[in-house]
Amino acid sequence: MGAASLLHGGDLAAARRLFPDAPEPFIDLSTGINPHSYPLPQLPSEIFARLPEPTALDRLTAAAAQAYGAPSPAHVVAAPGMQILLPLVAALIPPGRAAVLGPTYSEHVRVAALVGHRAKEVTDIGPLKAADLATIVNPNNPDGRTVGKDLLLALADELRSHGGLLVVDEAFMDVGPAGASLGDEVARGNIIVLRSFGKFFGLAGLRLGFALAPADLAARLNASLGPWPVAGPAIVIGEAALADCSWAEAMRESLGRGAVRLDEILTDAGLEVVGGTSLFRLVQMPAAVELFHHLGRAGILVRHFVQQPTRLRFGLPEREDGWNRLRMALAAFRS
Amino acid sequence: MGAASLLHGGDLAAARRLFPDAPEPFIDLSTGINPHSYPLPQLPSEIFARLPEPTALDRLTAAAAQAYGAPSPAHVVAAPGMQILLPLVAALIPPGRAAVLGPTYSEHVRVAALVGHRAKEVTDIGPLKAADLATIVNPNNPDGRTVGKDLLLALADELRSHGGLLVVDEAFMDVGPAGASLGDEVARGNIIVLRSFGKFFGLAGLRLGFALAPADLAARLNASLGPWPVAGPAIVIGEAALADCSWAEAMRESLGRGAVRLDEILTDAGLEVVGGTSLFRLVQMPAAVELFHHLGRAGILVRHFVQQPTRLRFGLPEREDGWNRLRMALAAFRS
Repeated sequence: MGAASLLHGGDLAAARRLFPDAPEPFIDLSTGINPHSYPLPQLPSEIFARLPEPTALDRLTAAAAQAYGAPSPAHVVAAPGMQILLPLVAALIPPGRAAVLGPTYSEHVRVAALVGHRAKEVTDIGPLKAADLATIVNPNNPDGRTVGKDLLLALADELRSHGGLLVVDEAFMDVGPAGASLGDEVARGNIIVLRSFGKFFGLAGLRLGFALAPADLAARLNASLGPWPVAGPAIVIGEAALADCSWAEAMRESLGRGAVRLDEILTDAGLEVVGGTSLFRLVQMPAAVELFHHLGRAGILVRHFVQQPTRLRFGLPEREDGWNRLRMALAAFRS
Repeated sequence: MGAASLLHGGDLAAARRLFPDAPEPFIDLSTGINPHSYPLPQLPSEIFARLPEPTALDRLTAAAAQAYGAPSPAHVVAAPGMQILLPLVAALIPPGRAAVLGPTYSEHVRVAALVGHRAKEVTDIGPLKAADLATIVNPNNPDGRTVGKDLLLALADELRSHGGLLVVDEAFMDVGPAGASLGDEVARGNIIVLRSFGKFFGLAGLRLGFALAPADLAARLNASLGPWPVAGPAIVIGEAALADCSWAEAMRESLGRGAVRLDEILTDAGLEVVGGTSLFRLVQMPAAVELFHHLGRAGILVRHFVQQPTRLRFGLPEREDGWNRLRMALAAFRS
C-alpha cells in the first residue's frame, strides 16, 4: 500500500510523498499527541547556552515525582524522551524471555530483542507471568484497553517470585482512569513505570520522558544517562507544566469533550469506534486501507497499522477547519 | 576542600553554596563552552509541539556529515548530547579491556566500567594498543594535547588486528589543528569519532552531539537511540549552525584572540599556562586549590580537578566586565 514507510505516526513528509496531490495544509491526525500544547514560557537564551545545572534537574524530577505520584524524586529518572529509556530499561535484567501484551506500540518488542531478549508479543496476560521482562502499555495504544491496578500488582508479585521485571508504559495515563497509575507502587522493587511528557502536554518535539523505578534501578538508569540527560528548555518547560494542575485538569475535560465529538463524527460516518483514549480513537473496519488512502488524498493523515490492517487510529484535530475537513472527507467516503 | 561536589564544570548553584558571600553576578569560567553562542533563530511553536520528522533529522545528519567531514550521512549518528552516546559506544564491543589516555574527561573511564569493561586511565599511548576499547580525547581536555592523525591511524590499524575499537573524543576539535580530525576515516571499520555540538556553538543546554562511525556501527547506535533521538529545536538550530561556515571561521579567529588575551592576563599574574585550546586554558601551580577558593570568593568559578590538584582550567569570559573582574581578582591573589 506504500504506507509501510509510515512506520510511526507524525511523518507528514512521507504523507506528502504518498499523497502528492492532497490539499494543504495537510492535517496530521496520525499521532496521539495533544494538539493543544501547553503554552510555551519565555525561554531565556542562557537556557540554550549553558549546561543544565544539577539543581534545575532536581526541580524537574521533584515536579515529576509529585505529578506522577512517585514515592520520591529518588524514584524518578528524567530522560530526553521515553523512547530512549526503552533499551536502558530492557537491559536492566540479563537477556531472557521478554513478553509484551499486544497488539501495542511496536517499539517494545523491537527494543527488547535489540538488547538480547527473546521477545514476543502475547495476546493475553497469562503468558506474561513466566516472562523475565513483562511489558504492558496501560492504557494501551491503540485500543485504549486498561488493565486494573490489582491485576498488575498480582502480576508483579508473580514476576518477583522468579526475578522478573514488570514494565508499565503509561504514555497515555494522563488521560487514563483516575487512580490507575502504578507510579506510587514502584518502591516494591520490580515495577518500572514509563511516562511520556510530550503526548499530554502536546510538546513531543521537546523530547522529555520519565521512568519511575525502584531507587536502585533509578540510580542505574541515571548512571547510564549521565550528568546532563535533559535539555535546558525541556527542564524549564517540564517543571512548569508538571506543576500546573489546573491546566491539566481543564485539559483533561477539554480532551474528553473532543473525544466525544470525534466519536460522533466517526459514527455519523458509519464507522465503528472500538476503543481509544481521549487523545485518540480507534476504528475497526474491513476497508481501513481504502479509508486511509481516501483521507490521505483529502490531506488528512491518520494512522494505519501494518500489523493490524483493519484498524485506523484518529487523533484529535486542532482547529475547527480540521474538524470540518475530517467530517466532509468521511462523508465523501461513505457516499 | 568542599569543591568535590563540583564534579563537572558549570554548576553555579554549587559554587554559590560553596561561596555564599561572593559578589554577583557569579562568572562561570569552569567549562570549555564558548560564551559567544550561535545566534538563536526564531523557533516556530510547532518545532516544540510535533514529533521531529525523519526528513528533518536527515537534514541534520547531512549537515553534520558535511561539517565534520564524515564520508556520508550514513556514517553519522545524531544524539541528545555526546554524553549519552558514551555507554552506547562502549557497549558496541563485548566487555574487555578499556584504556583511556589520561588524565582527561573522567566520564570515559566511568562509563566504560559501567558497561562491563575493565577500565583504566593510562598515561601514554603504548598501553592503548593492547586494549579492546581505546579512547583518546583529541584535543585533550584539560591540557589541549593533540595526537597526530598518522599516530591515530597506526593505532587503529594495530587495534583492528585483534578486534579492538578506537574512540576519538573530538569534543574540542572545532578549535583543534586543521586537518587533525579523524572524521573522514571512520569508514575504516574500527574508528568512532565523537563530536560535541554545544561547546563550540555555545549551546550546551540544547543537548546535541554526534558519533561518526562505520556504517554498520552507526546503524546499531541509531537502533538504540530509536526514531526520535534529537529534539525539534536542536534539529533546527543544529542544521543551521553546522552549515554556517562563515560564522565558524570568524568564531575560530575570535576565540583564538580570546585565548591569547587570557594567556596574557594569566601570565601577567605570574601564572604558568601549560596547555589548553582556544576554548579554555590550563594553569599548573602548587597553590591551585588556594586560587580556586580566592577566585570563588570573588565570584569567579574556575575548574579544579580532584584528580589533578595542582591544575586549574579557565574558560573565556563573555564580557569586558568579566575580563576585568578576572584580571583584578588575579592581581589581588598575587599581591
